[in-house]
Parts: sequence; structure tokens; C-alpha cells
Amino acid sequence: MALDYSSLGFKAIIAKLDNGVLVVTLNRAKQRNTFGDTLPAELIQVFDIADRDDRVRVVVLTAEHTAPAFCSGADISKGWGMLFRPEEDLEGETAHRDGGGQVTMAIYKCRKLTIAAVNGHAAGVGMTAMQLPFDFRFVWEGAKLVFPFVRRGINPEAASTYLLPRLLGHSRANSLLLSGITVSPTSPLISNLYHEILPRREDVFPAALALAKDLAINTSQISVAYTKGLLQHPGDTIEENHILDSRAIKLLGSGKDAAEGALSFKERRNPKFPDTLSKNSSPWYPWWRTVDVKHHKAKL
Amino acid sequence: MALDYSSLGFKAIIAKLDNGVLVVTLNRAKQRNTFGDTLPAELIQVFDIADRDDRVRVVVLTAEHTAPAFCSGADISKGWGMLFRPEEDLEGETAHRDGGGQVTMAIYKCRKLTIAAVNGHAAGVGMTAMQLPFDFRFVWEGAKLVFPFVRRGINPEAASTYLLPRLLGHSRANSLLLSGITVSPTSPLISNLYHEILPRREDVFPAALALAKDLAINTSQISVAYTKGLLQHPGDTIEENHILDSRAIKLLGSGKDAAEGALSFKERRNPKFPDTLSKNSSPWYPWWRTVDVKHHKAKL
Amino acid sequence: MALDYSSLGFKAIIAKLDNGVLVVTLNRAKQRNTFGDTLPAELIQVFDIADRDDRVRVVVLTAEHTAPAFCSGADISKGWGMLFRPEEDLEGETAHRDGGGQVTMAIYKCRKLTIAAVNGHAAGVGMTAMQLPFDFRFVWEGAKLVFPFVRRGINPEAASTYLLPRLLGHSRANSLLLSGITVSPTSPLISNLYHEILPRREDVFPAALALAKDLAINTSQISVAYTKGLLQHPGDTIEENHILDSRAIKLLGSGKDAAEGALSFKERRNPKFPDTLSKNSSPWYPWWRTVDVKHHKAKL
Repeated sequence: MALDYSSLGFKAIIAKLDNGVLVVTLNRAKQRNTFGDTLPAELIQVFDIADRDDRVRVVVLTAEHTAPAFCSGADISKGWGMLFRPEEDLEGETAHRDGGGQVTMAIYKCRKLTIAAVNGHAAGVGMTAMQLPFDFRFVWEGAKLVFPFVRRGINPEAASTYLLPRLLGHSRANSLLLSGITVSPTSPLISNLYHEILPRREDVFPAALALAKDLAINTSQISVAYTKGLLQHPGDTIEENHILDSRAIKLLGSGKDAAEGALSFKERRNPKFPDTLSKNSSPWYPWWRTVDVKHHKAKL
Repeated sequence: MALDYSSLGFKAIIAKLDNGVLVVTLNRAKQRNTFGDTLPAELIQVFDIADRDDRVRVVVLTAEHTAPAFCSGADISKGWGMLFRPEEDLEGETAHRDGGGQVTMAIYKCRKLTIAAVNGHAAGVGMTAMQLPFDFRFVWEGAKLVFPFVRRGINPEAASTYLLPRLLGHSRANSLLLSGITVSPTSPLISNLYHEILPRREDVFPAALALAKDLAINTSQISVAYTKGLLQHPGDTIEENHILDSRAIKLLGSGKDAAEGALSFKERRNPKFPDTLSKNSSPWYPWWRTVDVKHHKAKL
Repeated sequence: MALDYSSLGFKAIIAKLDNGVLVVTLNRAKQRNTFGDTLPAELIQVFDIADRDDRVRVVVLTAEHTAPAFCSGADISKGWGMLFRPEEDLEGETAHRDGGGQVTMAIYKCRKLTIAAVNGHAAGVGMTAMQLPFDFRFVWEGAKLVFPFVRRGINPEAASTYLLPRLLGHSRANSLLLSGITVSPTSPLISNLYHEILPRREDVFPAALALAKDLAINTSQISVAYTKGLLQHPGDTIEENHILDSRAIKLLGSGKDAAEGALSFKERRNPKFPDTLSKNSSPWYPWWRTVDVKHHKAKL
């Protein structure tokens, strides 16, 4: 029997699946959608499930557009202690694993298409884990955006020093991460981060959903997974990339989705792609080393 | 006796050399300049020759501006079978080498300056192999541009998952490759790909040719080759790059082209650079590993 | 007793420290601020000192806005011989270390924030070492900017083939380095290089100084150093970056600057960050290999 997302007991998020599009809405408007309580764990869980649920083709993360913020970061009114877990402290100085980074990686490793619909202000982890690992970002033109880390005595987290320079280049990444200034989406410092910038808060989610619906119908699940794999793990040289994409072309080009892709294009109609990741991926995937980042406890 | 490009028997392209500029024109307008028949092999051959012909300083690839498209990709009206060669199939699943990728690498490895004059619509391999490996791209403002792979059940090829993120950053590369949407050159999603965007189709080639003529006169062949080498193979760290560019500066700065470059600059005249790659390169070049990507046959 | 920058005997630059901001002004207006005489050595020295002087939080490099140029590159009126040192020539062809690259690395490795205020024309090393290794670049809209290397018979130096593609992506880096054309800051080919573009020459330094003063008060020295470290040495994979930024978060999040950062944010006042690099860095920093690029003499 198919999984019902409403049965998972989420509190910090609401998750609904409809025709291949899984919409995840932050449900902490009263807390300015701060990154706390069960939110990180629920995000990790929902993206992990979305990765493995063949019915899901696109995941959209958004907030209520009437909330005070899309995500105002971590709540630091009581200092930084909430970042650390007592059981990690017992294990020594290298045991800590940043919660934002754990969410980042759950989203980044999801083999389905992911869209962030940023319909409000965003700060700190609301800029990093909640935006950078996504495939596409939509944003409200009036949003105040800030990576405030150097102004708070800490460092950018959630793998943002890896992701932001890759997304925008180091000129813009340096400007944003090393100044900690607040910018709006139309600033040339950050505009390239966004697939689309919408004038009104209430327009952001519908625009993201329209792309999501298009992609849920018109893209192949297996094409998306292999393309994301090639973008994240292209090989070290152009020759290695050529060998990898040749192998993928051979594999996918001989499959049912490719046949349907060519036929539906010829017949000028929407495709009905039959292949799914659970049945039609190959032993060759993933071709990169998957790394376990968990801390290995020193004592039994 | 010098090679005559008209003697090479090309059918899918026309190649003409004039004062250091080799113009290669796609000659398949009736087939919408699709990537088929002898086109891939002829492109590989002409860029390989251009790489080694000292007379060539710049290569411009273009199409007739009255053609239905600059290049509308592969012809998939009969499915994807045309991608695969029977002799490769006999060799097993890892034998295939993507034809687009082979063209990409011939262009990318050409040590001369390369310009794509995209004076029409472009799709699929018309966006990848026919544009991404070039040093400069000119485009018609009205061109419809699309990387449709995820909508056809296959994956981006021709080393595009290596090249496009390097050219534009991952934010734009993800938007283009993972959505498969059609964009125009002025879209912020793709505009950074182009050196210049021209309002009329007929303006694209003349603009590209004007830059080509300027560069053919005013750039040093050996400077170009070493600069391309440094850009493609910069070393793994800033320290390694410093050691590489120091060695190149020592080598080139002691040469005739550098002496002429300084003198002509002082005398405010065009330079006449005497050095050529066949005579004046060094045993040190290339400093990177050259990789053989051919499939090694399993049986004799 | 604290170091007095006016006691260092600089001739080619003027260095003044005021409230955490070290302003370095090029002092060779009569020589068009060419990169010669003692200028390279003095720049290396002042950035090396700034790196280690706890009082310095931000370094601003600028020129007199009435000078003929911000920096017109190397003076090649007598050819390229000035690039090479006789003692290096005795050591053989691999002994040369590019002077521009040595300056680049002194600036790049400085753990404090660095700003270039480019209030005039810039060419050659005036574009490379004098701009690319900085964290932020401000520029006058009317500046003529050029990387002329391929037009002079040499290659781009000062680690520019490493830095420029990282800053802007390869599409723009190729356009600039392989054409050698002169552009203005508002050209789409180069505009992403600049944090801010100012209409008048005399506005450039004040704008840069305003950001410098903001950053000197409101950023943590140790946050800046670790963030620069993470941006320059993010690890090879997202997993490695996650482990690195987790460790930094653990270290910094437990420190005094982080406590003050959270408290001052809560109290809506400017922070007073107490931590300094000389006292509060950790044995773990740097986590990357530091490489010695000096030539090792072959003979005693």
C-alpha cells in the first residue's frame, strides 16, 4: 500500500503529494519559521522518503506567504548552545555534525527535482540549507536576504562555503559570505541565485508550482537522477566526463523513457514516462564514492 | 605545399581559410543542420587540422543565416538508434563513445582561438558540442535555445555536465539542464554564455568575423595556446598555478613574440608575431596528462 | 609597543592604520602606478604584516584618484627583461617566480578582509595581482580595464588563470583573457567582478572605506579567517566541507566572539568582538597543506 504523507506525524512541516509533486510547507509561522525543534529532523525525513518514493517527481519547499519570514534562521536569543547536542560533546571536539549541513545533504542527495519557493525574508540557515541545495529557487522581490555569520562570531554552515561559490562563482560568494550584508534578490550580488524573481509574495509559490507541474509531467525520473548525478559528480576531467556521459547515454538511450521521449516529441504530445528509479536504475549508479559523514563513536 | 581546405572533400561543412581565419560553415540547411551523416566526422577532422596548421589563428563555426536552424540537434524521428554503432554494441555496455563528446573534445583541444557564431535556433547537441567547447560565442537575440535532454528520457551529453557549470556556475547550469526549458539569449538564465548578443540573424557572423580578424592579427599563436592550456589545466592549487604561469612567463617572455609584443605596443602599431606552434612550443607543453578516451577492444 | 606603519620606510606605498582599517595607497602616480621598483616587495611586506597584526581587521588598497591610472601594469617600454632576476637565470629555466604571483599570494593568504578600490584605469598586473586576490573590488565606472597578455606575446600571470575563472566562471574569464580586449566595468563581460561600480573616480575610495569601517566594527576577526579558509579550502566533496564547517562551528560557536555576536544581536547594538587570531585560533587551523613555492637552489 502506498505511503500516505499525512500519516507521518509531521509537526514542523506539512507534506502533500499530488500528481507527482510533493509540496512541503513550513509550519512554524509563529516562530518565524526558525530552524529548530523537530524541523531539521522532519526535513531530513521527508527528503529521504521523497528520494525513494517513485511517485514523487518534484519536491517544492515553501512557507505560508503571510508568515513573518520564509525562515529567519536559528533562534539565537539564548546563544549558540542549541546548536550542540550533549551526547556529541561527550565524544570530543570532532564529533559535532552541523544540523544545517545534515538537512543540506538530505536535499542535495535527493534524486528528484527540488524547488525552493522563498516567499519571505531569509537569514542564516534560511539562506543556506533552506535554499542552496535545491535545483531551482524562486523568490519574492521584496525579500530581505542575509548570510550574517561573520557578524555573529561564527562561520557559514550547512556546506554553504562549498555550494555558494559553485552556484554563483567566488566573486559573488565572497561578497555575500564575507560581508554579511543584507541584500534584495534583484541585487547583482545575488540575482543569479534565482531561477525567477516574483514581484509579490503570493506569486512565488504558484510560479514554483507551475514549473513543478510541468516538470512532473514532462521529465523522465531516470533522466533527472542521472543528470543530477553528472552535475554533482562530473568526473575530474573532461575526458572522464565524456566517458561517464557516454555510458549514461548508452544506458538511458536504450531504455523505455528514451523511446517514449522520442516518440512523444515526434507526435507533439506530452510523454508518459514509464521508468522508475526503484526498477530501472543500474548497478553502475552511483558511480561516485558515497561517503558516510556520521561520527564514529570512540567508545562502546 | 600548403594544405587547400577545399581539397578535403567535405560535404556537411564548407571550410575556407583567409588571412589566419578559418571559417567553417554548416552545409546541411535542408536537414535543419541536424547533427548526422558525415557532420561529426568532418568537424572532428577540420578542428584537428586547424589545431596543427600554423596558418590558422582563429576558427569560426557558423551556419547560413537563412537556414531553418543553426543546429536543431540530432534527428530523433526514428528514435535513438542512430546514436549507437553496431561494432560498439558487440563490445559491451562500456564501449560506446558519444559522438557529440568526440566533437566537443576536438574543438576543446584545438590550440587556436575558436568562435561559434550562432545565427539561428539551437537544440540539444546544437547547444552542447556546437557551442560549449568554444572560446567565444556570438548569438542572434531571436534564437530559441534549449537543452531538452530530461524531457526526452536521456541525459545531457557532449561533456555538457562538465562544461556548462564551469562556464556559467551551477545555478544557471542546473536551471537549464534540469528543466529543459526553451530560453532566449537575453534570459538571465543563459545570457552569460555569450560574448555578444546581436539583434539580427545576419549580424551574427559579421560580428564574429570582425573579432576573428582582430584576433588573427593582434594575438600571438603561442600566447593563445599557453593561455588556453592554463585556463583548462590551471593546476590543483593557487600555488601550482603560480608555478605553472611563472614557467610560462619565463618561456614566452624570452621569446620573439614577446619582444614583438612589447615593441609594437611601444610603437603603437599592429604586431607581426613570428612564432608558431610547430616550431616554438616547448617539450614542457602540454604539462597535463593527455588521456586516451578510446575504447580498448576486449578481443583481437 | 605596537608597530607604527609610518616607520617601515615604504616608498612605493603609503600605509595608515585607523580603527582597524589599514589603508594602503599606491604612491607612484608619476610612473602611472606601474608595477615596478620596490612596489611588489612593499605590497608583499604590508599584507604579510596586516595578516599578523591583530589590530588590522580590513585592508583597503587604492591609488590617488587624480593619478593617470590605478595601475597601468608593468613598464614594458624596455621589453620584458625587468621580469627576470639574474640570480634566477643562473638557476635554470624552472627557477623563475613571477613577481605578480608573489603579490597575489601575499594578498590571497592574508587572513583579514581585503578591499581593492580601483579608482582609475587598470591594465595587466593592475587587473591581476592588484585586483583578483581581494575579497571585494570597488571600481570607477569610467575605468578602462584590460588583460592584454595574448596581444603582447606572453601569458596571463599572477595566478589569474586560477583566480579569474573561479571568480566569474570560464565563459567570462575566457572572453577577457583570450581576447585581450579593453572593457568598461559595466560590460556584462566583467561587471560580476565588482562589489560596487561608482560613477565618479572620487567616489570609489569613500565607498570602499565605508564598507571597511562597517566590517572593522561588525565582523569577528576569527570568523573572517575561518570563513576565508573555508572558501579557499572547502574540501574536495560536500561531505568533507560538511565535516570542516561542522568542526569550525563547534570551535567558533563555543567562543567569546560567538557569545558576543548573539548577545549584541539580541540587544540590537554593535558588537565588541574580543577574540584575536594570535590568541584564539586553534592548532587545527590551517587544515590544508601549506605549500612552499620558493625555488630550491640546485647548488650550494
